[in-house]
Formats: sequence, structure tokens, C-alpha cells
Amino acid sequence: MRTVCIVGVGLSNWGEVWKESFRDLHTSAALKAIESAGVDHLDSLYVGCMSGGLFVGQEHLASLLTDYMGMRGLPATRVESACASGGMAIRSAFIEVASGISDIVMASGVEKMTDVDGDEATYALATAADQEFEVFHGATFPGLYAMMAHAHMAKYGTTRDMLSKVSVKNHNNGSMNPDAQYPFKVSMEQVAKSVMVADPLHILDCSPITDGAAAVIVCSEDVAKSLGKPYVKIIGSGIGTDTIQLAQREDITTIKAATLAANAAFKMSGKTIDDIDFCEVHDCFTIAEIIIAESIGKYAPGAAGPAILNGETTLEGSFPINTSGGLKSKGHPVGATGVAQVIEVYKQLTGQAEGERQLKSSPKIGMTQNMGGSGGSSVVHIMEVA
Amino acid sequence: MRTVCIVGVGLSNWGEVWKESFRDLHTSAALKAIESAGVDHLDSLYVGCMSGGLFVGQEHLASLLTDYMGMRGLPATRVESACASGGMAIRSAFIEVASGISDIVMASGVEKMTDVDGDEATYALATAADQEFEVFHGATFPGLYAMMAHAHMAKYGTTRDMLSKVSVKNHNNGSMNPDAQYPFKVSMEQVAKSVMVADPLHILDCSPITDGAAAVIVCSEDVAKSLGKPYVKIIGSGIGTDTIQLAQREDITTIKAATLAANAAFKMSGKTIDDIDFCEVHDCFTIAEIIIAESIGKYAPGAAGPAILNGETTLEGSFPINTSGGLKSKGHPVGATGVAQVIEVYKQLTGQAEGERQLKSSPKIGMTQNMGGSGGSSVVHIMEVA
Repeated sequence: MRTVCIVGVGLSNWGEVWKESFRDLHTSAALKAIESAGVDHLDSLYVGCMSGGLFVGQEHLASLLTDYMGMRGLPATRVESACASGGMAIRSAFIEVASGISDIVMASGVEKMTDVDGDEATYALATAADQEFEVFHGATFPGLYAMMAHAHMAKYGTTRDMLSKVSVKNHNNGSMNPDAQYPFKVSMEQVAKSVMVADPLHILDCSPITDGAAAVIVCSEDVAKSLGKPYVKIIGSGIGTDTIQLAQREDITTIKAATLAANAAFKMSGKTIDDIDFCEVHDCFTIAEIIIAESIGKYAPGAAGPAILNGETTLEGSFPINTSGGLKSKGHPVGATGVAQVIEVYKQLTGQAEGERQLKSSPKIGMTQNMGGSGGSSVVHIMEVA
Repeated sequence: MRTVCIVGVGLSNWGEVWKESFRDLHTSAALKAIESAGVDHLDSLYVGCMSGGLFVGQEHLASLLTDYMGMRGLPATRVESACASGGMAIRSAFIEVASGISDIVMASGVEKMTDVDGDEATYALATAADQEFEVFHGATFPGLYAMMAHAHMAKYGTTRDMLSKVSVKNHNNGSMNPDAQYPFKVSMEQVAKSVMVADPLHILDCSPITDGAAAVIVCSEDVAKSLGKPYVKIIGSGIGTDTIQLAQREDITTIKAATLAANAAFKMSGKTIDDIDFCEVHDCFTIAEIIIAESIGKYAPGAAGPAILNGETTLEGSFPINTSGGLKSKGHPVGATGVAQVIEVYKQLTGQAEGERQLKSSPKIGMTQNMGGSGGSSVVHIMEVA
């Protein structure tokens, strides 16, 4: 297996993007990534998208998007694992370059979520849960994560303040990110008093519905060196799955798929969680960030909430989490999220994070954790400065 | 890159399978493939599915199906390229094994198409075409292929009899396939007099709507040898894309994506079309088989129809096409089709094709051509006896 690098990145506009279509968003991110890498061609494309069928009535995405990039004929594949689709695209590109079959591969993700009304969006997202055993009975994602939150609070004494602190921290980070959908700061009180969605989760515990796309250029180290642009190495890639049905899990206060994915990535890279300087995690809800910080092995079960409350995961803390603002503030176009996480790690490792959110600690190794549904799948990547 | 092999195969029931769900169908095919290969574990799964979201309201497929196989935790990814999704799963598994990341990977495909009514199925399938420039204006797949048929007839003099002969031949082959959805024979007259769907395509020019799943075990040659079961080598893998919008093509009497995919597979394998003994092609409509036989370079433009009419592509002919019965007779559960094509080539090369359809010519090299939509994507694999 060859060393695999990331050398160029691009984000479309993120938010409620009324004036750009599904295909426009992807083209925008893709062309920015190509320009920033300075590559003159691609060997193939992997695009992550959760549900083009339900959100915009469009499957056969990879060929369509390749055409709109002006690259008809390019080998192109769409990958899907619900909200972890973007991470899967990164992994597929990583494997193709590692194999030697291709030298320059684009990994991208896209979702256009606001072209349907709220009920339809909730239905589309719910297809990441078990249709026959969860959705049929009325479960939605806020409800599923609310159950996980209650269980975690009951078992470990996790508090309202710990949940709120995740939101406050991520909105603070996002306020320095020009690409964030909601770049405003929130206070502990604002989070706790915001509208209730599914007890104990308030609206400011929930990531938003977002239109957006993200793209990166994944390439061999020879190519990365020749381009003369900043690049990082992907030193670990891991994926894991679990039953997508919450009721079938042994323990809903942990995400086993994330543990499996992290352990696989650690094994490939020869690193441990102690070698990781900072991490982007899948904070679709505030409770998810707490559970993931434990599931990837950074904190013992029940210890992440107190650590977050103590400020350990802020920009100045010992283990910054979601310097980008996370899904909470940056936004969550589900298919694009996993790719955007990698973009944040790339920016931090190459000193390109905008404004005051660039870590002062000169980080050497960063990690991403992307998640599907209520934890039925997870993808972890570990990147190191070149 | 390592040599990659196929060592075990499994098909679920195919047809209108009222008593088995989406997840049942996949589990059935997957467990048969595992049993036939004799493997005691898998390293990962790639599952092709066109639209779980629109057909059964279920995304996040790979994790769900892994769980139902009894393999929670297994790395698993869903890939999609409309009706070429199964071929994409084979290719992804091929790359992962070739890279050395994994030794034993399942490639599978599944589609449950009859749980929605006819209008919904037509809509779901139409999402493989361009939603904004084709579907919005009323185009459906029979209509798109009818335009291709008219253009081919006008340019090359392709006749009604040539179209009919594709159907007659494939139903004849399918009559010997115990897995075929429609294992009956049809006459030239029956095809020509069957109900008109979209002029010039009659119902017996069209492949059916099918529930079904297919799975194969893709592995390294070391593993294949150690199992002591019949296996074949994948010596070439190629994919190609084109605009999914028919109106944007330079020429609608040829499928450029298939030409690109075939050429890429020929290049990897060091073979030419003259080295191929037989082929499974994507006959979603009779005209498609004619156009593909030309696009992969076997016949000059306009020469495939006469050759098929002359019997060159029958079981006894010089270049048998669709010995399985093809999509026309065997059935077309869109996500599973590309995998089932590989199963037929595996069976023919290892002497396991049921009954009288086993080729008497002792074929050494077989090829599959799987296609998305009206030709917006194509995947080609070339396999050789071990």
C-alpha cells in the first residue's frame, strides 16, 4: 500500500442555499478543490450522498456530477452510509490510491436538503434508521438521540450544563469559520432555554438542515510533492458498523461502530488516541459529541461531559474538538459532512484555518469521526502533517 | 496490485417475491455465497443498490444488511450507479482486495421493486435519468430507449426482427436457468405482436421489474487456492461515465460509457475483444443488447443486429451473449443485476451453469457489461479460468 495524501480542498456555500441546485453545489466545491490542489486531471471520483432519491428525486449521482464538473467519461461512483457517506467517499478514494489503481482521486459529498418541506426532510433522514422497527413506529432522529441522552444522564450523571457546553463551544468555534451556516455565539442559558425538540434535547442541541457540498483531492505522495501545495498524509482509515436499530444494541450510552472504526484507524496508523492532537467528531446532537469522545477512547465512560464542561475541548484546551464549529454551528448537509470534517483537519494541520480558530499549539496529528444514523456506521481517518 | 478472484456465489429468489423483504432477499443471497465459498469470515462488504430510499424507504443499507447477515461490526459500504450499482460493488471489492487492505470481501446487490405500485416504480427508476432535463418533461426509460432504437434503425437499418431475435434468444437461454424470473420461450411473432410500450419497443422488448439479490465472494488468490473450491480470476475491471442526459450525447446510437469501460478493462487485462469467449451484457431493452454489442467493439456500428439475427450470439454461436437469459428473461432487480452477471460468467467458466445452457465450447475468458440508466455509466469486468 502506498502513502496517500490530501492536497486540495473546496467547500460550496453552506446553509439554506436557495439559488444553487444540487448539481451547482457539488460543482462549486469540486472546482474549488481542483483549483486549490492545482491538478490538471482526475483519475476518478467518489461522491458521498445519503439520499438524492428522497431529497431531490435524483439517483445516478456520480455520472451526473462528473458531467457537470466538465469531466464526462471520468470513472465515478457514489457511496452511501447515511450521514457517514462523506467519510465513506474519503475511505474509498484512499483505498483506490493506496492500491495503485489511481493516482489522483476526488472524494466529495453533497446534500440538498431544503428543496423538500420539513416533514419530507424528517422522513428522508429517518431512512437512516430502521424503517420496519423504528420509523414505522414514529421514531425520528431527535427522539432516538434523546433516548441515548437520557440513558447517558441516568447512567453517568451527565447534566444539562454538559450538553449545553458542547453547543456553546461549537458555536464559539463556528463564529470564526466563514463557511459556517450559523456563525453566531450562544450562551449556556440560551441553549437551556431554547425550544424543546425531544426531551432532553432543545433546538440548540441539534445540528441544522443544510444544503452544501465539500470536496478534497486524494493523491499519491509523489503527486502531492510535485504539486508544491500544502498537503497532509492520511495515516489511518477505519470503518465500523453496528445494528442501525437502537433497541438491538447492548448499550446505548456508547457507539460501538465508532470504537471499531477508531481502533481500525489506530491499528493502521500505529498511533493511539494519546497521539491525536485534536479531532472533528460527528456532533449531530450535543449528546453525540459526549458519547463519541468516550467511544473513541479519549475519555472513560461518563468522563467526557465533565471534561467538556471544564474546557478541555476548547481551542485552548488539551484536546480541541470540532474547531470548525462542528455540525452544530457549521451545518450538516449529511452527505458532505464527513468530507468537510477532513477539510477542517487539513486546514488546521497546514495552518490554513481562518482567523482565530487556527490552533496555536502547532498540531501534528488530527482525526475525524463521521457517523451514520444513530451510530449504525462510523468512519474514522487520522491525518498527519507531511 | 494482487491477483483477485471470485470463489463463491449466491442468488436469492428472483421475481415478484411477496414473502421475502428487502433484508431477507439480501441475507439469502449473502449466506449462499458464504456457504458456497466455504469462507469462515469476511473482511468487508460492498452492496450495490439503486434506490432503497424510493423503493423501500430505507437508506443506510450496508450496516442494516450486515446486521441481518449476523455480522454486526463488519466494515460495509453501499455503492450506487443506478442499474450499474451491482457492477460498482464488484469493482469496489476488487480494488479493496487488490490493494491488500482486505483478503475476503463480499460484493452484493439487492433491489426490492414490487413493494411500490407501478407509477412509483417508474418514478423511482426515472431518477436514473436527469430529473431536471428529462424526467420533469415526462421521459421514462422505455421512452428513452425507444428514441435510441429509432435512431439506430434510421441510421443502420436495424429491423424489428433483429430486436425480436434478442428477446427470443434470451428467453430461450433463460428457459434453461432455474433462477430466471420468466423462464418461458417466446417466438418472433409473439415479441412483435406483444403490447406496445414505447414505439418501437413492445413489452417483450423490455426487461421486467424484479425483486432479488445476488452476492459473490471476492478474494486474494492465496485465499481462493486454500479454499479448494472452483474459482475464477478477475483480470480486468473498467468503468466509464457519460452525461446521463440523452439530449446532450454526441450520438445516441452508441453507448460511450460502455466503450470507455470496456477499453479500460481490456487495458488492465492485456486482452482484446477477440480474446473474449462470451459475454453477459445489460439488455434492459432489446435495443440495448444490440448497441452494447457494438459499443464494446465486438461488432462494427450497425453490424450487431444482423449478427444476432444470424445466430452468432446463441449458445452455439461464435460469441454467445447472455447465456443466463439476460435481464430480459432472468429478471432485473436493478442493484443486483451487475452481480448476477458476474455469477453467470463464474458458473460458465467453472462448468456449473445449470442444464443445457452450459457452453460446450469450454470457454476460458468471459466478460460482463453492466449499465446505469440510458448509458450514463457502465462497468465491465473480464474473468478468466484459474
